[in-house]
Amino acid sequence: MSLEPRAHQAMREGAEFDTIRALMARWGDLAVDIGDDAAVLAPATHGTRVVSIDACVEDVHFRRAWITAREVGVRAAVAALSDLAAMGARAEYVLIAFVIPEGWREQLSEVADGMGAAIREAGARIVGGNLSHGAVFSITTTVIGRAPRVVPRSGARAGDLVVVTGLLGGPGAAIEAWDAGGSPTGWSRERFAAPAPRWAEGEALALAGATAMIDVSDGLAGDARHVAAASGVRLELDAALVPAGPGISAEAALRSGEEYELLACVPAAEYEALAARWAAISVVRLTVVGVVRDADADSDSQSNSAKAPPAHGFDHFLLGKSSR
Amino acid sequence: MSLEPRAHQAMREGAEFDTIRALMARWGDLAVDIGDDAAVLAPATHGTRVVSIDACVEDVHFRRAWITAREVGVRAAVAALSDLAAMGARAEYVLIAFVIPEGWREQLSEVADGMGAAIREAGARIVGGNLSHGAVFSITTTVIGRAPRVVPRSGARAGDLVVVTGLLGGPGAAIEAWDAGGSPTGWSRERFAAPAPRWAEGEALALAGATAMIDVSDGLAGDARHVAAASGVRLELDAALVPAGPGISAEAALRSGEEYELLACVPAAEYEALAARWAAISVVRLTVVGVVRDADADSDSQSNSAKAPPAHGFDHFLLGKSSR
Repeated sequence: MSLEPRAHQAMREGAEFDTIRALMARWGDLAVDIGDDAAVLAPATHGTRVVSIDACVEDVHFRRAWITAREVGVRAAVAALSDLAAMGARAEYVLIAFVIPEGWREQLSEVADGMGAAIREAGARIVGGNLSHGAVFSITTTVIGRAPRVVPRSGARAGDLVVVTGLLGGPGAAIEAWDAGGSPTGWSRERFAAPAPRWAEGEALALAGATAMIDVSDGLAGDARHVAAASGVRLELDAALVPAGPGISAEAALRSGEEYELLACVPAAEYEALAARWAAISVVRLTVVGVVRDADADSDSQSNSAKAPPAHGFDHFLLGKSSR
Repeated sequence: MSLEPRAHQAMREGAEFDTIRALMARWGDLAVDIGDDAAVLAPATHGTRVVSIDACVEDVHFRRAWITAREVGVRAAVAALSDLAAMGARAEYVLIAFVIPEGWREQLSEVADGMGAAIREAGARIVGGNLSHGAVFSITTTVIGRAPRVVPRSGARAGDLVVVTGLLGGPGAAIEAWDAGGSPTGWSRERFAAPAPRWAEGEALALAGATAMIDVSDGLAGDARHVAAASGVRLELDAALVPAGPGISAEAALRSGEEYELLACVPAAEYEALAARWAAISVVRLTVVGVVRDADADSDSQSNSAKAPPAHGFDHFLLGKSSR
């Protein structure tokens, strides 16, 4: 393609195919049928097909000095897979578009290993991809999956309990430490570098009747606002209940993003049974952090639709009863 | 998300949502249900689901000085849609991940208009997206569609005719002119800036029994090599038959990439009937440019599988009988 810079031209005819072959060898039977213009999907015989796209850009979503190339791959895959978990879905198919500067070429197989490990663990297959030269490294991942029961952000109802999986605050603490020129604790670092997507938890929450669900990527407080806005309700979180990681304040745990834990609203009547069987579902804890309330009387005009601009919901979100 | 640079932090809380809202307003009913972690797809009641991902990176796939922001959007969408056309599929769903440097923010609505126009014309809907700050502008597009009959690259058989849609050479000539500091002809510029995906043509070729198909993104000669390699055959193209655009040599037409025309292998017995009804299918011509031959006797060991490394196929590709 004569449009592209010389370096990339060389890559398309020779090195690009070498790179693709190296990736395919690395992924083995995890990657199927790459080599056509598009991939064929098996018919969905049950459940609902869901799809999501997520980008991971160097110096925006991570810094190279912080984590290994393999961890870059794990994070990129988990960030994408987590969006499906938050819908109550499991991933089946993954498509990956790499933009690769010269300096990244040699690390690509490690990135591929990290992505491959996360995708394999999710039980999905890589069915398509794209490789492009470019000045800034990025990975854009599309995940296609299936949900026995889809849970949107918009279904939270007054009276529901607000629950969250796992312990929060790790990624935020890790970034804070790195930004200050220090080193994060092992736990915080691990939570940033190799998060685990919560698909088993997401599916269990969906099947338990969760009315709304979201993954904690903007921080618990921020994502609670998204659910409140989409559902046309208030989410009252109690800061004292927030499950913070070791050495992390409740305030920091509320703010920390890129968690890939799940925030869900669960009908109060269903919660007890879910809590009783939770230990069989997950190794991480499930914590009640608040309740869903009707929107204030003065917000009656607010749309109950998911299409309501999120900004409207922010005004009606109350963070903890004590702060009212 | 405290990880990100200040500029992006501001965007996530305020400007990012403003941008998303602006995009949604721009796209109107073309974009559906964005706002959840993932999008729900309707069940495929007929045909086969196919999916593809494609990236468009500034200064790799285009230069801003060459084309308008709207044309950047059209090209990005068409490049992705074309991959489905090459499988005999039409797009139903589109997901778009933008990486946006500060300088692109104000042009984004024009980019969105261009993408929207191409996606609307294809009859597809935008069901998901991702917005990220970043130093280099890029658009990564995932397209999901359906094919009544899927055509891979790997099915070409000896005796098939090799056909190509449209007139070739425009994008190559346009880039050559720009690279030389000049201006391309109107026709060449249009072919680069606003290509038309050939989904009606792709579907018709599929239904006419095409055994292999690919879109001409690496140049007719290069893409013929891909088909030859995937199918374990030789494609003999006659340079004198290649349909070149106005003022363009056969040699340049063979090399020109990013064409988004279709190269297909069609059983000879089916060709006449297809040619007879072609005028009712498409406004562009369908041209026989060569034939498919068995691989040479000394290449019997070559795999007939699409997984055969393309490099093996290159050796067995003959460009025109006269060059043998």
